[in-house]
Amino acid sequence: MPDADFKVGLLGHGTVGSAFAELLGERAAEIERFNGRKPVISGVLTRTQGDFEEILAGCDLLVELIGGIEPARGYVLAALRAGKHVVSANKQLLSQYGEELFETARERDVRLRFEAAVGGAVPVVRLLEESLSATPIERIHGIVNGTTNFILTEMAQGSSYAQALADAQSKGYAEADPSDDVSGRDAAAKMAILARLAFGTPVHLNDVPYEGIEHLHGEDLEYARELGLGLRLIGTAERRDGGLSVRVHPAFLYPGHPLASVSGAFNAVTVESETITEITISGPGAGGRQTASAVLGDVVSVMTGGARPPAPPLALRLVKDVESAFYLHMEVADRPGVLAAVTKVLGEQGVSIKSVVQRGIGENARLVMVTHPVLESSLRTAMDEVGAFEFVRSTPRSIRVIEEEFT
Amino acid sequence: MPDADFKVGLLGHGTVGSAFAELLGERAAEIERFNGRKPVISGVLTRTQGDFEEILAGCDLLVELIGGIEPARGYVLAALRAGKHVVSANKQLLSQYGEELFETARERDVRLRFEAAVGGAVPVVRLLEESLSATPIERIHGIVNGTTNFILTEMAQGSSYAQALADAQSKGYAEADPSDDVSGRDAAAKMAILARLAFGTPVHLNDVPYEGIEHLHGEDLEYARELGLGLRLIGTAERRDGGLSVRVHPAFLYPGHPLASVSGAFNAVTVESETITEITISGPGAGGRQTASAVLGDVVSVMTGGARPPAPPLALRLVKDVESAFYLHMEVADRPGVLAAVTKVLGEQGVSIKSVVQRGIGENARLVMVTHPVLESSLRTAMDEVGAFEFVRSTPRSIRVIEEEFT
Repeated sequence: MPDADFKVGLLGHGTVGSAFAELLGERAAEIERFNGRKPVISGVLTRTQGDFEEILAGCDLLVELIGGIEPARGYVLAALRAGKHVVSANKQLLSQYGEELFETARERDVRLRFEAAVGGAVPVVRLLEESLSATPIERIHGIVNGTTNFILTEMAQGSSYAQALADAQSKGYAEADPSDDVSGRDAAAKMAILARLAFGTPVHLNDVPYEGIEHLHGEDLEYARELGLGLRLIGTAERRDGGLSVRVHPAFLYPGHPLASVSGAFNAVTVESETITEITISGPGAGGRQTASAVLGDVVSVMTGGARPPAPPLALRLVKDVESAFYLHMEVADRPGVLAAVTKVLGEQGVSIKSVVQRGIGENARLVMVTHPVLESSLRTAMDEVGAFEFVRSTPRSIRVIEEEFT
Repeated sequence: MPDADFKVGLLGHGTVGSAFAELLGERAAEIERFNGRKPVISGVLTRTQGDFEEILAGCDLLVELIGGIEPARGYVLAALRAGKHVVSANKQLLSQYGEELFETARERDVRLRFEAAVGGAVPVVRLLEESLSATPIERIHGIVNGTTNFILTEMAQGSSYAQALADAQSKGYAEADPSDDVSGRDAAAKMAILARLAFGTPVHLNDVPYEGIEHLHGEDLEYARELGLGLRLIGTAERRDGGLSVRVHPAFLYPGHPLASVSGAFNAVTVESETITEITISGPGAGGRQTASAVLGDVVSVMTGGARPPAPPLALRLVKDVESAFYLHMEVADRPGVLAAVTKVLGEQGVSIKSVVQRGIGENARLVMVTHPVLESSLRTAMDEVGAFEFVRSTPRSIRVIEEEFT
């Protein structure tokens, strides 16, 4: 007797939802060939059609592609409680209610998979959950927002921020309201999810400090180009001072860094660990069919019994104030004593200077410095003091610098 | 009642074997935490110690780290037939007796995993088997031999082949007898394994034509540097002409290709497909602890029930003669009529020239050409004819060129 079909209930039929239904239809025969069971869509819920209870009762697995918190959260919880497996692409939900969902999935011994919630088609969730499950991870660096990486790539080629953003919007990489992307909040949600997987510690979106790319200047990218550095919006999750630090901010990357060469609307994640040195995975960050492919991969994992419930949480302390090297940019009056006054304030806060360049003259004079690693709080205090000098003509800028650690 | 320990029998206790035993000891508690069962080494077979039958009877899973065909093949078959799961890092075995092992594993419904047989710590097997199992793959390009990539990286910086090889040997990247690496045979074995996973078609090592890096000249790398191209030893497995082509050869890569920037003893694999565009994964290609980490990851997969037996084989025809663009290098006499004679022979074989440069004068004159894509057999015929001209001073060289296809 052949196995019965594997019935998939689908919530949401937008770009990803319709691409998923199409892809499942195309691949069903091949999946049956190696799996023994054939996946079929047993019901679809849209804003105007379908009945959730009926779809739930008639499926083996629920795919949630609605997005946002409610009603998605209610549906997913109901499905898990009913003993149904769930596949979701919902980063908001996972980064804010992840523990509630994980705990429910553990209690009912059902699977909850969410590859498409982080990194589009790039299978970084699986990399962390499975390939590296035997590896003590030290650090993750990720480019997890394709929109901002596209904008930064364009800016590196001379576009202004406004031009690059408009270009991203016309190409469909950025929403009409791009604030979630450009502010770093979208990346912060994804890093919260990755941090939970890599380090076992629950991290809520609200625990992740983030800075965006809105305040970067063409001049900063020019500086990066001159020195052969990449400037990228980087999410970091790492062990620090016996705890865990998770954060998102623009950063200069040294030329050999695996993320420095990731261009355009791509995503990439580097995982560092003593046992594996470093592994990097990269690919397209978005696209309906790419995301649908990740969702279908999750469905297949559940069908083959490969997924396991998330492990119970560990409690690593979240470290908020961490050391980084910084690039500093100050527009200053061109007169004696300025450099001395700035370096005195920096020195008082323990900010040690690695290199300094004074550029331009007169109205255009500016100081560009790179510091040795320093606590972010000390740097902020110093920069506030520097910004208060009457000879500083506009708010000083600071961007983190990620230096070589592996060779 | 707590679950019983998960008993692992270990065959081989060399560099990887001892690193594996050590890593398992370090990670056992953490694996138990999320898995419920604790992995323990229940027996070790070395050349001088241990009894295979006893180890087999006392284990849940057998880890084979002996290498080579026999006795490894006999042990693995015996384990599978006894209903034991097997994890192996043995590329020779998988690329020559893979179907026999897969079939036995399917019959007994046990798992056979081999992440460490391809790409060291880089989880490309899992990427193909699981993440992309729902994706129709079009092409794989891989740098799957760290030794040759290290040598080519050194040569690109001005070392001779002999210097670079000696350097690789002193750093432990190359064996005293490096012929398996530099000939491309090691890479061919790995590509045979990847092709089976990606395309479902059994590919024997003997079915994979390979060229190595022994005949590359410093001049070829100089040419690559001038044009901003990478020169790498590339394994390819791709759908071609309704069949499958699997091969290994040096190739020039256009600057934006994800593999062009992979340097040193790293491995990297790019998977291309219409649904995912392209995904690249990279990391260290070797190292006892890195390889041990991949082996342990496989053990954990089996413990969590995540692995499935390989699908029954499909029969794609193996295509041996495929089209590529080529770079051609000919040392010629510096006199009228030479270019005309060469281009006439090329034209007769349907080799169309994209660009041509004549370099040097007198004794040092040489022609460097890049062709449009042409069948390899036609190119070979043409090059044999060109090589027979009395004005050609040494055997002409040809290197494939991989041009941009995705944007």
